[in-house]
Amino acid sequence: MKFCSNCGAAVTFRTPPGDSLPRHVCEQCGTIHYQNPKIVVGALPVWEDRVLLCRRAIEPRYGMWTLPAGFMENEETTAQAAARETLEEACARIEVGELYTLIDVPHISQVHMVYRARLLDLGFKPGEESLEVALFREEDIPWEQIAFRSISMSLRHFFDDRRNGTWTLHTASLAPPPAEWR
Amino acid sequence: MKFCSNCGAAVTFRTPPGDSLPRHVCEQCGTIHYQNPKIVVGALPVWEDRVLLCRRAIEPRYGMWTLPAGFMENEETTAQAAARETLEEACARIEVGELYTLIDVPHISQVHMVYRARLLDLGFKPGEESLEVALFREEDIPWEQIAFRSISMSLRHFFDDRRNGTWTLHTASLAPPPAEWR
Ligand SMILES: [Zn+2]
Ligand SMILES: [Zn+2]
Repeated sequence: MKFCSNCGAAVTFRTPPGDSLPRHVCEQCGTIHYQNPKIVVGALPVWEDRVLLCRRAIEPRYGMWTLPAGFMENEETTAQAAARETLEEACARIEVGELYTLIDVPHISQVHMVYRARLLDLGFKPGEESLEVALFREEDIPWEQIAFRSISMSLRHFFDDRRNGTWTLHTASLAPPPAEWR
Repeated sequence: MKFCSNCGAAVTFRTPPGDSLPRHVCEQCGTIHYQNPKIVVGALPVWEDRVLLCRRAIEPRYGMWTLPAGFMENEETTAQAAARETLEEACARIEVGELYTLIDVPHISQVHMVYRARLLDLGFKPGEESLEVALFREEDIPWEQIAFRSISMSLRHFFDDRRNGTWTLHTASLAPPPAEWR
């Protein structure tokens, strides 16, 4: 951030009185521009013994597989975000169930949430951001080709919990990956 | 948002190609400025049979009681945010436990999360944003003077679950309050 989004003047980076962290401050109109973590919401859509995955048609991780997921929008709920992303990326209609994983990713200032979901019909197809959409049994999941750690973590919990018949919220915090992965 | 925070030019509000919602777009440098929901994280600090509340020294809801809570900062985890807010508002040290409530507040584009927590000692006192900090038994909670609905909801669940001995994540979505409350 270099300019004030309210008045267009250049901003400075300093700690406002009474605050504990430096912020982008506009010396002309006085606006303090806070920057906050973003929420990424996804769904884990299930059809019988299979899970719906999308192959990414966009960067990052072009060509890799993921659950339908994306940045939450203003004025929606987390569950609505899960349903919207699933419709956009897989043209798939779901019934959103329980919140299933909540994963902090502090080095990129994100919080990832995945909801369990029931796929309502088989009329899915790739949305604009997907190359392919398909249903996978546990033994067919392309584990080495999953785009994000929070997604593979959510999938592993799902198959474990299904095997054990015990469903619970899973929380975690991800450290930065080794430098060669970045 | 009126000006581009990257180059200072005036922004327009239009739907970018391939997008489904209007965004603030800079026609000069091409930056698309997304606006996303904010996360508010709080703690429910417990000492024996009592819960720690803070009386607000700031607007909104000056003078009303709340759990320690505030906007999550970049580069921290949700649990770290809960501990930081508790230290800032109540000068209180806690051990953060399980995520306890996750409440969507879509009409103000916020997601509220409250963690259960164990108060580590009795050396609390009001921080800069609090008039008073105190421990309350269930029968002494000033229910009519709780600042936010997500906070009173979290407190009610806590006392119910404690009575029943059953602890679980509670999720909810809040509709806008009646107009006279706004
Ligand atoms: Zn300004
Ligand atoms: Zn610009």
